Amino acid sequence: MRGEKKTVKLSIVGFGNVGGSVADLIFAKRSALWRDFGLDIKIVGVADAKGVFVEEDGIPAEKLREFRAKHRVAPNTDLNAVEMIDAVEHDLVVEATPTNIESGEPGLTHILTALKARRHVVTSNKGPIALHYERLMRLAADNGVQLRFEATVGGAMPLISLCLENLAGSEILSVKGILNGTCNYILTRMSEEKLPFEHALREAQALGIAESDPSQDISGEDTAVKLVILANAIFGMNASPKDVSVQGISEITPEALLLAKDAGYTIKLVGEVSRERLEVAPRLVPKGDPLDVKGTLNVATVKTDIAGDITIVGKGAGPKEAASAILSDILKIFA
Amino acid sequence: MRGEKKTVKLSIVGFGNVGGSVADLIFAKRSALWRDFGLDIKIVGVADAKGVFVEEDGIPAEKLREFRAKHRVAPNTDLNAVEMIDAVEHDLVVEATPTNIESGEPGLTHILTALKARRHVVTSNKGPIALHYERLMRLAADNGVQLRFEATVGGAMPLISLCLENLAGSEILSVKGILNGTCNYILTRMSEEKLPFEHALREAQALGIAESDPSQDISGEDTAVKLVILANAIFGMNASPKDVSVQGISEITPEALLLAKDAGYTIKLVGEVSRERLEVAPRLVPKGDPLDVKGTLNVATVKTDIAGDITIVGKGAGPKEAASAILSDILKIFA
Repeated sequence: MRGEKKTVKLSIVGFGNVGGSVADLIFAKRSALWRDFGLDIKIVGVADAKGVFVEEDGIPAEKLREFRAKHRVAPNTDLNAVEMIDAVEHDLVVEATPTNIESGEPGLTHILTALKARRHVVTSNKGPIALHYERLMRLAADNGVQLRFEATVGGAMPLISLCLENLAGSEILSVKGILNGTCNYILTRMSEEKLPFEHALREAQALGIAESDPSQDISGEDTAVKLVILANAIFGMNASPKDVSVQGISEITPEALLLAKDAGYTIKLVGEVSRERLEVAPRLVPKGDPLDVKGTLNVATVKTDIAGDITIVGKGAGPKEAASAILSDILKIFA
Repeated sequence: MRGEKKTVKLSIVGFGNVGGSVADLIFAKRSALWRDFGLDIKIVGVADAKGVFVEEDGIPAEKLREFRAKHRVAPNTDLNAVEMIDAVEHDLVVEATPTNIESGEPGLTHILTALKARRHVVTSNKGPIALHYERLMRLAADNGVQLRFEATVGGAMPLISLCLENLAGSEILSVKGILNGTCNYILTRMSEEKLPFEHALREAQALGIAESDPSQDISGEDTAVKLVILANAIFGMNASPKDVSVQGISEITPEALLLAKDAGYTIKLVGEVSRERLEVAPRLVPKGDPLDVKGTLNVATVKTDIAGDITIVGKGAGPKEAASAILSDILKIFA
């Protein structure tokens, strides 16, 4: 138990798989959060595309489960999400709307509104962080609140905290890894079963690993956006997605994977960020290399000046994993 | 840059390889610490078995380099280490004397003295943390200071922060890994070159990887002490080294490694801690498993309820790596 007992009021904006999983997790861990951190977390507002539900003393679990089951919030107010963020008294906004990498909206407006109202923000939304990092971090600092975004990169794998906090005693020279579980799954299946790309992709879609429109993943764009977040957060580069050299996996053939295998390698979609390089491309990875992880796993190797190379491996995707990263961020702010 | 600019005064008790590397690192990173964290770290006292040197405005780098070169501190005071910790005004004590797993001394007295004087402590010394965890943490809390010990387990690999801070949103179910680089090196060489145990051990000693008395490492005792630290810090178990079931690696033959290899496995000295189990033993690890790392690397897989399995790999030993972990702990306190 650290610090004093306290009540934290939060809203969840974007009540889909991730936002809903955050609510589930907060209720599931209610007693542990009180026992271990002295925190009583109340969800005072939720918003989705359908509307907003507010209860300033905390929305009961049953009500939120009902919204989850019906895949929509049944509004009890005329406020829209932005008005709710601004007007309802609370401490923190969980921004979990889908990533839009063109404009960053609607997440950008949600985050701007929350920070100006002096509310902390924890987000899984890559768009605003990739597109407007400097502006948002300055606004948070000016308003004396935090903006945290561990869930935007690597899912449950706490790569950003590792670099910014745990390895603060070393200088980070580069981060290199597999940041898209869908591509890793497809390449793993192509290699193990000698499947053509299209076949492995359809299998991934059937299993719910790839989306019905998988273009962001297989083009390498999703990895590129994550690299931009790392570039800005870790290296202070003020980069944007157009600065990344990107090549995807759709041209890789089972024959290429076989040739690689015979030579002791495999092919992975690798993203790399350093002050000199911002690149996503298929690369040969030696068998047994730390980056040679299979299935939907994510991995990153952080190269440092003093601590050497640190590699972290974990589940890169999934709403539960994102919710876990969001809750860890919330605890860093209040516990 | 986080927070206000500030001066931090610290002492280094135990000025051998680790303590000396901490001093080197602080001087090497002086401008980065000021620029990135607003910190001006002054080393106001150093102590080794020969004596104590104090300069309240900060000991110059040249003086510390001279002590490093001569492998001894040239005292400028009659104070002993304990008196220096108590009497000299400073904010934090780096306790870097060698681990003594019987009594915890002299580190235990150093840490007790520092905490009672309301000074933060960052240590690489496993003895006091393994033997007196609860008492020391309570004393730190009662005095409003922190006791941090990332460097005691896994060297540069920030396993403790990962579990306690970055994964706070999940419950840790178990931690399982290779926490002794010397054993991992010996087993790797035995497996790759079909060397007998004694031969691989002598090679490791010739390379400075194994100590002249390697018994703590090869008996599994060093791993056991690290498991106790994890048991206490992560699981609140109040365990001590006698609670660990321990088996070392000296009975492993090249033939056993060959048999394992033919079946798709390798043999590693694995430590595992959970609420039900506290055990160090050689175990079969499948080829390609996250724990199948080679050479002197350390690795740990953290099993969680929500975030799944997170694996971290890094250099487990070495004075520079320990110094990096110590500096990261210092930054967590002040930055």
